[in-house]
Amino acid sequence: MNPIEFWFDFSSGYAFFAAQEIDALSSRVGRTVLWRPYMLGTAYKVTGARGLSSTPLKRDYARRDWARIAKARGLSFQLPPEHPRVALPATRAFYWIEAQDPGAARCFAKRIFAGYFNEGLDTASPEAVAPVALDFGYQPEDLMAGIIDPVIKSRTTELAEDAVARGVFGSPFFLVDGEPFWGWDRMGMMEEWIEAAGW
Amino acid sequence: MNPIEFWFDFSSGYAFFAAQEIDALSSRVGRTVLWRPYMLGTAYKVTGARGLSSTPLKRDYARRDWARIAKARGLSFQLPPEHPRVALPATRAFYWIEAQDPGAARCFAKRIFAGYFNEGLDTASPEAVAPVALDFGYQPEDLMAGIIDPVIKSRTTELAEDAVARGVFGSPFFLVDGEPFWGWDRMGMMEEWIEAAGW
Repeated sequence: MNPIEFWFDFSSGYAFFAAQEIDALSSRVGRTVLWRPYMLGTAYKVTGARGLSSTPLKRDYARRDWARIAKARGLSFQLPPEHPRVALPATRAFYWIEAQDPGAARCFAKRIFAGYFNEGLDTASPEAVAPVALDFGYQPEDLMAGIIDPVIKSRTTELAEDAVARGVFGSPFFLVDGEPFWGWDRMGMMEEWIEAAGW
Repeated sequence: MNPIEFWFDFSSGYAFFAAQEIDALSSRVGRTVLWRPYMLGTAYKVTGARGLSSTPLKRDYARRDWARIAKARGLSFQLPPEHPRVALPATRAFYWIEAQDPGAARCFAKRIFAGYFNEGLDTASPEAVAPVALDFGYQPEDLMAGIIDPVIKSRTTELAEDAVARGVFGSPFFLVDGEPFWGWDRMGMMEEWIEAAGW
């Protein structure tokens, strides 16, 4: 059984909501999840698209939509005033953590999401991200070194480029046995697809 | 009770699916629906966005997504080879029909959708659209005259520009008591919102 590939940008509001729901979906369908943060900018280079928050009309709509999803789900959601941050340091930090302990990567990602969307964590700042290491039994200076490690930097870039080459262009974006599902609002369809073993 | 404003482009695959489901939703929630075709290009001028079929990666994804939605819903869906057509003549024809008989407009819209997504109707050609008039008790030459009537042309443009000024930018896009819902995949949320009288 292949895992569900879960591609997301740490600055994506819809990915935040997906991150709250993917574990339960994973349990229900009996598939593991491969958490894969990436920079949406990697996809924008190919699609020519722009982020929601850089697009007139969509910007205001998305803020309204996120607020009502949060309310409907009973979730705390505070968009940082500087949204969207370029979460490259947090993304590299994820892959450093994963290299140390694959099992901790998912928890680290959820910690980053909670930090960004609830506590104003500056995911674009290595100095702000590094102390999160303490929650996972690592020293901030080691995570800081990981964020600038050329191997981690290359891996972060290469994974993203490979994903885009396989058709990934949004956040969240799921791949299951090669089948693509774009958006938090496709999770239900993905679950049906997995349970029916295709259609 | 305000109606549900249903904004769409006749060339939008997701709008086709919404058009198949909006009547049942309307009955369940006890709200009428105001069908409002418009040119997505009117919104693109403001957002800077492009259509799915003009966007790398999204183009292929959308075709796959439409095919599986059609399969899941048991609907016939044949994307014309020339997709996306610029459906301005069909849109103007809608407003001419509506001006003659408001009650027939919804049926006319469904007829155009079925024609475009199942029968290869060229919605960009007044000559191809005009004969549809016969199904509604009008003469093709009268509909043809309506399509080029300056009053109808102005109304088509003005309705679209007014909608975009009120935040409409996608297809399908719904407005209910001022609350916006973008996408076929937001119809469930819209229904919950109406039934809960907001949240």
